[in-house]
Amino acid sequence: MTSEHDTAGFLEELSRTSGEWLKGDGPDADIVVSSRVRLARNIAGFPFMTRADDDVRLRLVETLRRAVLAAAPDEGLQFINVALLDEMDSQLLMERQLISRELTVMDGPRGVIVGPGEHLSVMLNEEDHLRIQVLQSGFALQECWNMADALDTGIEASATYAFDEELGYLTACPTNVGTGIRLSVMVHLPGLRMTREIQKVNQAAQKINLAVRGLYGEGSQALGDFFQISNQVTLGCSEQELIENMHEVIPQIVGYERRVRELLCRENRQALDDKIARARAILTGARSISSDETLHLLSSLRMGINLGLVEDISIGDVNALFVHTQPSHLQKLHGGPLKTAERNAARASYLQSRLGSA
Amino acid sequence: MTSEHDTAGFLEELSRTSGEWLKGDGPDADIVVSSRVRLARNIAGFPFMTRADDDVRLRLVETLRRAVLAAAPDEGLQFINVALLDEMDSQLLMERQLISRELTVMDGPRGVIVGPGEHLSVMLNEEDHLRIQVLQSGFALQECWNMADALDTGIEASATYAFDEELGYLTACPTNVGTGIRLSVMVHLPGLRMTREIQKVNQAAQKINLAVRGLYGEGSQALGDFFQISNQVTLGCSEQELIENMHEVIPQIVGYERRVRELLCRENRQALDDKIARARAILTGARSISSDETLHLLSSLRMGINLGLVEDISIGDVNALFVHTQPSHLQKLHGGPLKTAERNAARASYLQSRLGSA
Repeated sequence: MTSEHDTAGFLEELSRTSGEWLKGDGPDADIVVSSRVRLARNIAGFPFMTRADDDVRLRLVETLRRAVLAAAPDEGLQFINVALLDEMDSQLLMERQLISRELTVMDGPRGVIVGPGEHLSVMLNEEDHLRIQVLQSGFALQECWNMADALDTGIEASATYAFDEELGYLTACPTNVGTGIRLSVMVHLPGLRMTREIQKVNQAAQKINLAVRGLYGEGSQALGDFFQISNQVTLGCSEQELIENMHEVIPQIVGYERRVRELLCRENRQALDDKIARARAILTGARSISSDETLHLLSSLRMGINLGLVEDISIGDVNALFVHTQPSHLQKLHGGPLKTAERNAARASYLQSRLGSA
Repeated sequence: MTSEHDTAGFLEELSRTSGEWLKGDGPDADIVVSSRVRLARNIAGFPFMTRADDDVRLRLVETLRRAVLAAAPDEGLQFINVALLDEMDSQLLMERQLISRELTVMDGPRGVIVGPGEHLSVMLNEEDHLRIQVLQSGFALQECWNMADALDTGIEASATYAFDEELGYLTACPTNVGTGIRLSVMVHLPGLRMTREIQKVNQAAQKINLAVRGLYGEGSQALGDFFQISNQVTLGCSEQELIENMHEVIPQIVGYERRVRELLCRENRQALDDKIARARAILTGARSISSDETLHLLSSLRMGINLGLVEDISIGDVNALFVHTQPSHLQKLHGGPLKTAERNAARASYLQSRLGSA
């Protein structure tokens, strides 16, 4: 189904487009950038990854690939052999949130199957044999879950999962045992961050067993006012209960952020206008810009759009810029590797081409 | 000769124009913004200012005014009674470098006589009875001295200066005794500042009895890469010797700054381009900006023009912006007092109107 040529073309195409889940639509998309459901699964009769040698891993990739493609035969899935990718291409997939950092750095046979519009990605041989991930724009966990659940059921038609009647799905890491599910939403909370209320969100989330993390998941720092909120518990309650839990909490955070923004608009309008105008000025005017600074400035611009203070740029455009200004995207666009200083210049020129008027 | 109506009209006009010495022409005007000669004089038979009561001061103002106007009858001089000015107007004259901070804050009868194009200003009843100041664009100390000397000689025709055969001109502060002259040039040294070479200039200048000060003279901090270099010694050498001394030193500093700029252009071009482009972006994009930040950014922009990296703005335009973005100029333009936040917004909008393309 996929030759290397296919992969190259797919990656080329990828670097010029954006995932559907970045469109900026869906419920509460002003604050909830995206929703994600991830299922961890392992195949019965195969050892966990830590004990699987390359032969086993190779057989796993073939078995899993067949099972996933069989489960969704009409959906135009693309298999990518991650072991064959160079660093730039595997980074590209990571910047795209289609694969994890772990999958880029590990050795041995491994891959990812990507669905059209990038709603779906299934990692093969990451920490678990299978990591099914569904992404949607806005606050749409139920939709993500429905899609993930359907694929999961489809896969079970041709593969037998490692499952224990009492514990549930068995996973490589005990924290995933049970449902094997992780629900997460990426929220944009510039108001709560500016007013330092973000600490309270953090504390409140921890009390009810939700984790607040940075943009790139576990261990990463929150950057540019973006936070991932996800469940910590996977054992002892159903998927539906976990989704309901998020449906209680996330709207409260969204409401909190909205109230703070309104307050800022009312009582600190000049500073807010200035922050947003400067962000735009630097994004379009700089000749060299780091990815961190870009992230922070795009965050301000994004809030400006949400508040109606910037009218000629869409949320979807800004969401896409977050992805397309990252190193591998810039290098892919350039057609080859760039050193840091060159990347910073390429990033500035890309931003100007997208946001500049002159 | 001047009614209050005249003064109001003159100040109004002032707030909309720029001094000739800001035109950005004259020798080495890329680095030497302006040259200034100041003569301190006191009238024989009157006590020094510290011992002069208001009656004496009033008589002094009248005597001095007549003497100055008689010395240059055809030059359209404007007398301004500083004691009658409100804070905004006296600040305006100070921002214009026509009067000193001291003259704005002291009490009692005092004034200033301003010549056309603002090349000439004569303060009456400042630290000394007379402070004759001549300003020119670029490195033009000889021209300044010739003009100051001619006026000085003219005044002596109708007034007798306090003069001692051995000491020279007697002044309120011993540091001015002798020639009573202070020569100073305002230099723009962003390259030496960026590369931290400015320390060396400072040390070298001190060794040969030159002072390096900030934009607003004594006690003020250097801001935005602008420095005033002036003689410390006024006793024991002639005016011409002092001028020659400056003519030896200043070209060395100018050459040093030029070499550093060339080096930056050659070896750090991207960072330089970025700095200048960002300065312009913020100056035109901000909605609120302090006068300090403005000064720093205009400094970068000015260097960009000098290096040919910015082509659609002139040095004269930027020089004028340094003056017109100061608090009293903005308030005069607005037509009344503005609070800090309002001034910052007015400054941003003024800068945009002058530098923005949109």
